[in-house]
Amino acid sequence: MLRLLLFLLLLSVPGALPAPPRHRRGAAPPTAPYLTRYLTQQIDHFGFDENLTFQQRYLVADQHWNKDNGPILFYTGNEGDITWFCNNTGFMWDVAEELNAMLVFAEHRYYGESLPFGNESFSDSKHLNYLTSEQALADFAVLIEYLKTTIAGARYSPVIAIGGSYGGMLAAWFRMKYPHVVVGALAASAPIWQFGDLVPCGAYFSIVTNDFKKSGTGCSESIRNSWNAINHLSSTDAGLQWLSSAFRLCSPLKNLQDAAILKNWLSETWVNLAMVNYPYKADFLQPLPAWPVQEVCKFLKDPSLSDKLLLQNVFQAVNLYYNYSGEASCLDMSETATKNLGQLGWYYQACTEMVMPMCTDGVNDMFEPQKWDFDALSEECYRLWGVRPRPSWVLSMYGGKNISSYSNIVFSNGGLDPWSAGGVTQNITDSLVAIVIPDGAHHLDLRSHNPLDPKSVQQARALEISYMKQWIEKARHSY
Amino acid sequence: MLRLLLFLLLLSVPGALPAPPRHRRGAAPPTAPYLTRYLTQQIDHFGFDENLTFQQRYLVADQHWNKDNGPILFYTGNEGDITWFCNNTGFMWDVAEELNAMLVFAEHRYYGESLPFGNESFSDSKHLNYLTSEQALADFAVLIEYLKTTIAGARYSPVIAIGGSYGGMLAAWFRMKYPHVVVGALAASAPIWQFGDLVPCGAYFSIVTNDFKKSGTGCSESIRNSWNAINHLSSTDAGLQWLSSAFRLCSPLKNLQDAAILKNWLSETWVNLAMVNYPYKADFLQPLPAWPVQEVCKFLKDPSLSDKLLLQNVFQAVNLYYNYSGEASCLDMSETATKNLGQLGWYYQACTEMVMPMCTDGVNDMFEPQKWDFDALSEECYRLWGVRPRPSWVLSMYGGKNISSYSNIVFSNGGLDPWSAGGVTQNITDSLVAIVIPDGAHHLDLRSHNPLDPKSVQQARALEISYMKQWIEKARHSY
Repeated sequence: MLRLLLFLLLLSVPGALPAPPRHRRGAAPPTAPYLTRYLTQQIDHFGFDENLTFQQRYLVADQHWNKDNGPILFYTGNEGDITWFCNNTGFMWDVAEELNAMLVFAEHRYYGESLPFGNESFSDSKHLNYLTSEQALADFAVLIEYLKTTIAGARYSPVIAIGGSYGGMLAAWFRMKYPHVVVGALAASAPIWQFGDLVPCGAYFSIVTNDFKKSGTGCSESIRNSWNAINHLSSTDAGLQWLSSAFRLCSPLKNLQDAAILKNWLSETWVNLAMVNYPYKADFLQPLPAWPVQEVCKFLKDPSLSDKLLLQNVFQAVNLYYNYSGEASCLDMSETATKNLGQLGWYYQACTEMVMPMCTDGVNDMFEPQKWDFDALSEECYRLWGVRPRPSWVLSMYGGKNISSYSNIVFSNGGLDPWSAGGVTQNITDSLVAIVIPDGAHHLDLRSHNPLDPKSVQQARALEISYMKQWIEKARHSY
Repeated sequence: MLRLLLFLLLLSVPGALPAPPRHRRGAAPPTAPYLTRYLTQQIDHFGFDENLTFQQRYLVADQHWNKDNGPILFYTGNEGDITWFCNNTGFMWDVAEELNAMLVFAEHRYYGESLPFGNESFSDSKHLNYLTSEQALADFAVLIEYLKTTIAGARYSPVIAIGGSYGGMLAAWFRMKYPHVVVGALAASAPIWQFGDLVPCGAYFSIVTNDFKKSGTGCSESIRNSWNAINHLSSTDAGLQWLSSAFRLCSPLKNLQDAAILKNWLSETWVNLAMVNYPYKADFLQPLPAWPVQEVCKFLKDPSLSDKLLLQNVFQAVNLYYNYSGEASCLDMSETATKNLGQLGWYYQACTEMVMPMCTDGVNDMFEPQKWDFDALSEECYRLWGVRPRPSWVLSMYGGKNISSYSNIVFSNGGLDPWSAGGVTQNITDSLVAIVIPDGAHHLDLRSHNPLDPKSVQQARALEISYMKQWIEKARHSY
């Protein structure tokens, strides 16, 4: 139970680690067929003592590819099963024909099937040692070199990196570190500046709050008031029992620690809702209606209600997120924290390289105040994994805000997406370009086109395509 | 003895590994005083399981530095004691005042005093695991970040990477991988293309041969004929005895294996002479007269002499290299192969990342024909270090010839320098510039100015300075 608590702390308490986009349910059916392939990769690209290899999975779709060195759109897989990203990145499928492009989706090591040590991959810090962004980028570089030398007609194919969220960070970093491999990158909702003190630690949760504030009168205030209501009730056994029943929890709350888990779980729910606040019915993290934050806010109009009435409304709200299908007999707070191997990997990454400072103050946001506490994170990470985070390394490696000497990266961010807080939202140079999609949530632009798409995302995609065409055109002329 | 033979094979037989520039003698006195400093560095930047640190040595000279964010010239230390590079890179000392620059010389891990595991650093492949160019570049990036945040007035100092030979490769790669850390790089005599099949494997030894051919009638032919002469003599005990005495060897030759060592040692000597064929008396690898290849060739005018007369002349020639001071009572073939820790490190690097194919055919060069034999190298490396070389990795990592998307690197090469075979000798773009110094040997441009400097190296240095000024100026405007 202590371990579980720590997981939840890592998962969503602002003072610890933010929740990465997570992938709970089965993937949607693929837009088009693809082939599943595997490449033998070094487990350690950066050292020679460990000479073992593993099988990296990747997916290929070449239906629309111009076999005379047509372009390759290369998805830089992030923290999850690559088939899920493949099926949730409709934009690539949508543009393949127009660009006569081959699609390649590369799985990130330690996720999905690409486990360096099989079932032992997460067993200890020794086995986890090769889970870093640098090793993942090296996998991508080696894979592309392999594709270019083994696929007839691909030798001079210009390759464009595409990714969303952490995958977007990887796409940007890939172009930065391996410009000889990819001619450009589309980094969607990539919070490459959510590190060190590059952005205020509270910006992320204040964007979440704004989404709720704009989506209904009384909404963010209701949520802000809910924490004290829970605190009041959880101080007595009868209150804990009432909470367990009101939230239809599969496992009843037994003590204050459990109540803290409840609050973390609720916080995470609000954050996730903000991320997937799409303009149409979708099934990204959960099956949800169009503009789900507005739907949720319909339950949260009156922040001045008594504790129990307020929390009954909060239940209605989260029930919409967890039980839109109406099939759940109870709500399981631990479900999201333990089932997905991908999450395990991300916790490790957040405990090593990906140290993203987050905080709340309860004033500019609707959450309980919590300072960024690096020391607490470090202790948790040491206890969990036997490793210490190195918060400055990612800045030394990838340059922080001083990236103007890099080129050919489009950073897209949604105005509704909390991750835009750490994103590049203003042009840096002519070839480091920011696209802001005011009505967009988390990498909306990477999703399939939809009749309900706002104008802003349509324009963003058109601009992204025009940049990709420019990069491809320029690459052609250099051969 | 078997082990020694392997070392020698690694050291200079064309089919195995070329000799890196080596540093036998004490360094010349410093041009100006410097401070010696140490920075605590992670032993493993790319993994979190090994959390130990080591002390990286670096030298600082700020006599001429403009303390209001004046530039920093940063020597990217290569395979040896950093004080030796500091004292043999007079160019940096010469330009410090003109540029109001601080000089920093950073020692490469596993060389000099910067030993991650002290005396254990070379004990096995586990301890050697962190000896890679990527780790070294990471050390440099972390060091520069540290300097900028701790030295008052250095926060916005533009930093220029400078290095020669492997250090030049590191300077170029540093700019390529960390353009947010250095605004440009001067890569002197940096054979960044001596990998894979980027250049013909025989080019290196054919340049050595040309140097000798141009330096005296009959010179390269005499050397070409010397191998058979040795082969003839070493087939009998009397011949071995004669060779031992004629070459005044400290340890007499006992068998054919020893005769092979003699030939390797001679080959290495010719290669080294070509590298240090400077226009003035110098003491780089050995104390030598001006244009030492010409001096040596004075002994090697008649290739048609009988075996013994020919080899007596060859002895005179190598004696000039090893015993210009006249102090040696005998010549020690094993000296250079075992005494220098730096060499040990380079052998490991040549057995892992730095796989530089070399070959000879005896026609386009004056050496015994020897094919490039990767498998033999791999076996030797495995026997010596328990590691296997990965020849394609350096190409995936640093881009091979496909580097046009990088910027602000000056590649200088000497026409007399065998390493120019793998160097960038033609402009790639406006900001990836090649400077060729026809009369230059190995990174002559990095040496102190000298009254006997040929015009070509004077012009090269002037051009290098003008590029550095451009980079500095441009960096100023970006703040």
